Amino acid sequence: MKEIRVGLIGFGTVGSGLAEVLLAQQERLEKRSGLRIRLAKVADINISEMPPQFGDVALTNDAADLIGDPEIDIVVELIGGIQPAKTFVMNAIAAGKHVVTANKALLSQEGRDIFAAAARHGVEVGFEASVGGGIPVIKALREGLVANKILSIMGIMNGTANYILTRMTDEGIPFDEVLRDAQQQGFAEADPTYDVEGIDTAHKLAILMTMAYGMNITHNDIATEGISRIEPVDIEFAREFGCRIKLLAISRNHGDHVEARVHATMVPERHLLASISGAFNAIHFTGDMVGNVLLYGLGAGKMPTGSAVAADIVDIARNIATGSVGRVPPLSYLPEEISDRKITPMEELSCPYYFRISAVDKPGVLSAVSGILSQHDISIESVIQKGRKQSGPVSIVMRTHTALESSVSKALAEIDALDVVAAPTVKIRILEEDE
Amino acid sequence: MKEIRVGLIGFGTVGSGLAEVLLAQQERLEKRSGLRIRLAKVADINISEMPPQFGDVALTNDAADLIGDPEIDIVVELIGGIQPAKTFVMNAIAAGKHVVTANKALLSQEGRDIFAAAARHGVEVGFEASVGGGIPVIKALREGLVANKILSIMGIMNGTANYILTRMTDEGIPFDEVLRDAQQQGFAEADPTYDVEGIDTAHKLAILMTMAYGMNITHNDIATEGISRIEPVDIEFAREFGCRIKLLAISRNHGDHVEARVHATMVPERHLLASISGAFNAIHFTGDMVGNVLLYGLGAGKMPTGSAVAADIVDIARNIATGSVGRVPPLSYLPEEISDRKITPMEELSCPYYFRISAVDKPGVLSAVSGILSQHDISIESVIQKGRKQSGPVSIVMRTHTALESSVSKALAEIDALDVVAAPTVKIRILEEDE
Repeated sequence: MKEIRVGLIGFGTVGSGLAEVLLAQQERLEKRSGLRIRLAKVADINISEMPPQFGDVALTNDAADLIGDPEIDIVVELIGGIQPAKTFVMNAIAAGKHVVTANKALLSQEGRDIFAAAARHGVEVGFEASVGGGIPVIKALREGLVANKILSIMGIMNGTANYILTRMTDEGIPFDEVLRDAQQQGFAEADPTYDVEGIDTAHKLAILMTMAYGMNITHNDIATEGISRIEPVDIEFAREFGCRIKLLAISRNHGDHVEARVHATMVPERHLLASISGAFNAIHFTGDMVGNVLLYGLGAGKMPTGSAVAADIVDIARNIATGSVGRVPPLSYLPEEISDRKITPMEELSCPYYFRISAVDKPGVLSAVSGILSQHDISIESVIQKGRKQSGPVSIVMRTHTALESSVSKALAEIDALDVVAAPTVKIRILEEDE
Repeated sequence: MKEIRVGLIGFGTVGSGLAEVLLAQQERLEKRSGLRIRLAKVADINISEMPPQFGDVALTNDAADLIGDPEIDIVVELIGGIQPAKTFVMNAIAAGKHVVTANKALLSQEGRDIFAAAARHGVEVGFEASVGGGIPVIKALREGLVANKILSIMGIMNGTANYILTRMTDEGIPFDEVLRDAQQQGFAEADPTYDVEGIDTAHKLAILMTMAYGMNITHNDIATEGISRIEPVDIEFAREFGCRIKLLAISRNHGDHVEARVHATMVPERHLLASISGAFNAIHFTGDMVGNVLLYGLGAGKMPTGSAVAADIVDIARNIATGSVGRVPPLSYLPEEISDRKITPMEELSCPYYFRISAVDKPGVLSAVSGILSQHDISIESVIQKGRKQSGPVSIVMRTHTALESSVSKALAEIDALDVVAAPTVKIRILEEDE
């Protein structure tokens, strides 16, 4: 049986998960591929010996030693972050190794260099685990939906943010408290910025957009807002409007320009994305031929991520064995077909909006606010005024009809400048029922 | 640019859909694969000329002419049914052509012959469109989840049945009425037996089980019940129990034996499968590494099916172009690794049950019924007695704790033999919350 030798850089949570997957599934992979996939070497600066169950896997503290090992066919990078990950990946490619990575930050920022180098050296780059964890979303988009113009991408792509929003929704607890609890339980990082501010989601959306539309894009091109300003009261009002609040990645293909944004969104309860709870992810594509497709599963975690990395390894191993390296372009379009596209400026976005205005409880406030909205052509669908207390500001909550983002920005600037307005207005975009 | 020539047998709804997909996406497929995928010939006994938009596609009324055409690389069979489809497929394979089919009846019944012949002749067989329409479920199972032991398969795999149940649920209309309406609107066949009696779903489950477990199975091995006995009152009671009724395919892998069944099921509202509405399909896998994964989309229809058939064509075209035919075994395991497995007898199933007993409204009925259940070790979780009319039978509705199917069968036979019981008891299995 032909043997394919894997070298793994990074033996942290995901790296050790991959090792476990390859060990547990070795026989199954042989029965499915006719190939022996062997973890031959591990590079990690922090460990001095491999756990005994992994047998005769060589261990090094020097990634260069692994990359330079002529025995290794596929180098798996699971250390995360931009550097030294990029150097390792580029060196592996230059050494003629195929590469598998789960590193969405690296790919969304440095993907252009990496894929260009891979094309030059005729090696494969697998990155199934970079979006949607164990969900085979990259393969579905690249191969399963190959005969589609992708019209839109929408998704819940960060399990931590979705876990926090789900607990806020189910238990009515404030953001800070859920976050603290999630950190204690290991569901959130000590520095949760990437997860809760939408940056990790933007990394993933950039990867999907590149593949869906054949375009150059980095996460810096994506308008990104997080969920840290969402309060239990917003979730309560969302419920009254028949919605749940989700951190969504949204992209629509308008032909000559494409939307690219990540933000908290009110999703109608009947929409499948509203039902995605806890640490799960879901990615929703609309194709011009296939219509709506949704893929759901665990977006992170040791074994789900290991499952996706292993799938890439097997895919590349099959190409090595059949001499068909380069069979499918990694970004779904041939490199020369990937071009620049215009990103829709956020000011041109139009959708319905939710506003929560904190105002002093005086006569005439609603009239002043609605006057400003009307001047900016923003039409109110409904107003709720609740939580009238003895003193202090009250919340005026509104749902608008479809309005233009630029008008909304101007109107809210004027509203927030009113003497009677006590705090910056919270604005949440609403997904329309049929989207 | 290398050209791959496709011959299509059957120019009905799906066949013309495929032709439209290939025409609409020709340029996109070139940009993605570097190959020209050309529909070169169509065989159909019922048409005398091709619609003009398809240009210079040759037309024949004789499938043998297409199969024997040395120009054709891939033969697509879209006529459905067992014969003459099997003959065409076997002849195409014998002629060294790769085959793509959407024919789940054919594959679930004659798959063994077909895949054996394909292995012998070294050709590919693509069948993405046979399960889940446009959803890339076959590829996900075979490649995306390759590093998983599949622990369970659950799915809504028939859009017609799901459409009928959804309308019964949303509008409270009886089965017959919704079916008639669906037939008039073209959502249901004139003979709906395959769809509403679960047979089509069993075809699809047999295909997925073969691939998931590497086992020989035909739809005849699957315990199959339909939805034609479900009444609006059952849907109403399901709602009171916090459930929706769905026609589910269910298979669990117990190692030495595997469950295989298709039947109406009460699905807890919080389960994602309960949210799948209308003509949509959803397939839920549990893998030992990846955990739960769900794939959702349109399970039928001209263009979604065309999208899946086109994806198979591109996949095979890439293998032809790179000389890697046979790169992935079609049934996910190497042919020699596919073996017989024991199917769990239905009598050994255990789950909670819903019973609707039609009884004469006399004192002592509930006591007689519950006495019988207790003798068979079936414990009642809750009882609802409703619809007490002036005369005629009443419904006694029960939800049991987990019970053994063999005990349930015996108990219901005794209950139905009681003088006071007016009609056969309706039994619906309940999916447990955490499944």
